[in-house]
Amino acid sequence: MSDLKQITEALLKFRDERDWAQFHTAKDLALALNIEAGELLEAFLWKSSEQADIDKVKEELADVLAFAFLLAEKYDLDVKQIVLEKIEKNALKYPVEKSKGSAKKYTDL
Amino acid sequence: MSDLKQITEALLKFRDERDWAQFHTAKDLALALNIEAGELLEAFLWKSSEQADIDKVKEELADVLAFAFLLAEKYDLDVKQIVLEKIEKNALKYPVEKSKGSAKKYTDL
Amino acid sequence: MSDLKQITEALLKFRDERDWAQFHTAKDLALALNIEAGELLEAFLWKSSEQADIDKVKEELADVLAFAFLLAEKYDLDVKQIVLEKIEKNALKYPVEKSKGSAKKYTDL
Amino acid sequence: MSDLKQITEALLKFRDERDWAQFHTAKDLALALNIEAGELLEAFLWKSSEQADIDKVKEELADVLAFAFLLAEKYDLDVKQIVLEKIEKNALKYPVEKSKGSAKKYTDL
Repeated sequence: MSDLKQITEALLKFRDERDWAQFHTAKDLALALNIEAGELLEAFLWKSSEQADIDKVKEELADVLAFAFLLAEKYDLDVKQIVLEKIEKNALKYPVEKSKGSAKKYTDL
Repeated sequence: MSDLKQITEALLKFRDERDWAQFHTAKDLALALNIEAGELLEAFLWKSSEQADIDKVKEELADVLAFAFLLAEKYDLDVKQIVLEKIEKNALKYPVEKSKGSAKKYTDL
Repeated sequence: MSDLKQITEALLKFRDERDWAQFHTAKDLALALNIEAGELLEAFLWKSSEQADIDKVKEELADVLAFAFLLAEKYDLDVKQIVLEKIEKNALKYPVEKSKGSAKKYTDL
Repeated sequence: MSDLKQITEALLKFRDERDWAQFHTAKDLALALNIEAGELLEAFLWKSSEQADIDKVKEELADVLAFAFLLAEKYDLDVKQIVLEKIEKNALKYPVEKSKGSAKKYTDL
């Protein structure tokens, strides 16, 4: 079983032992992901990257990933496939010759 | 090579071809993740879960995952390990007997 | 003194008594606003609007507003003016005849 | 009529001309606020505060404020009162002698 499959299995087992599928609508999973993303951001508030609390980053990033994997599972999306496809799409929006060394958004390139 | 490793390799290749490592501080990766999480949320705005645009969910979820993986790589964190560890931690915060069928936060259990 | 001016004065007094202006870069104020917005969202997680904890909404909304006012002050923006101007702009993006009773984004009208 | 009252009146007029009250549940207003907060954050992505696009800050901050005011109105909350009350609460969490010159969260003071 692939790593990604193993993570998703563990998340579903945790959810189902608590009978939480009833709360996990796609919309609320997206809310949960946003809330955790905000908590991750808090690790960097009033700080430089170097000053961030790595343990907090680790914990909150794990929460973000957990809800991202659960949302992918909800829609039967393959995490590897959607990320690799998005990289291909972004390669068209950000061609190397135009975007190399530039932090501009593709709409401003 | 594991799925997770392959995804990270593809993301780093995309980044390095564009010489973007210079912009990818941990703090800005956390910002980018939050921005994409907000765009994911937009797929559900003024809508029920059933009305959400699945293609938009797929695209924005891929972006969230991409920045989550890049942030994990930045701190040399193993995605599988941190999620599985977080599940174990959450199992202590949400014991089955107390949390089964309840959407309450652990602080209110 | 207008209500908005009074609120901003109180926020600046609180900030300056603690010598916090040094931390309040525009970027970090935007981070803080996002973090508080996430906490506000948590009042609605796994819930309908009716089930939300109103006290939590009140507290977190106050935090969001506080950072929004501080950010406006940072750029010397007049809160009333920018909101009224944005309403005018949105009226062009969402003409009544096209958008009445529709939750569509202006790009899809 | 106070500034705050005028802003809210203008927002409600805009909403009602479009018959949008039906979409504006408290939960979705909180989602909208988060989405706009993310767009505000984008003005600072890969940038220092000084490099941010002020016009984008102005536009997105106006959107954040608009949804914050609409959410306050939804719960019949007085914006001035809730912010001033929160300042008082925060003064207890962050006493001057403990927090002066420190960016620490109150839980770490």
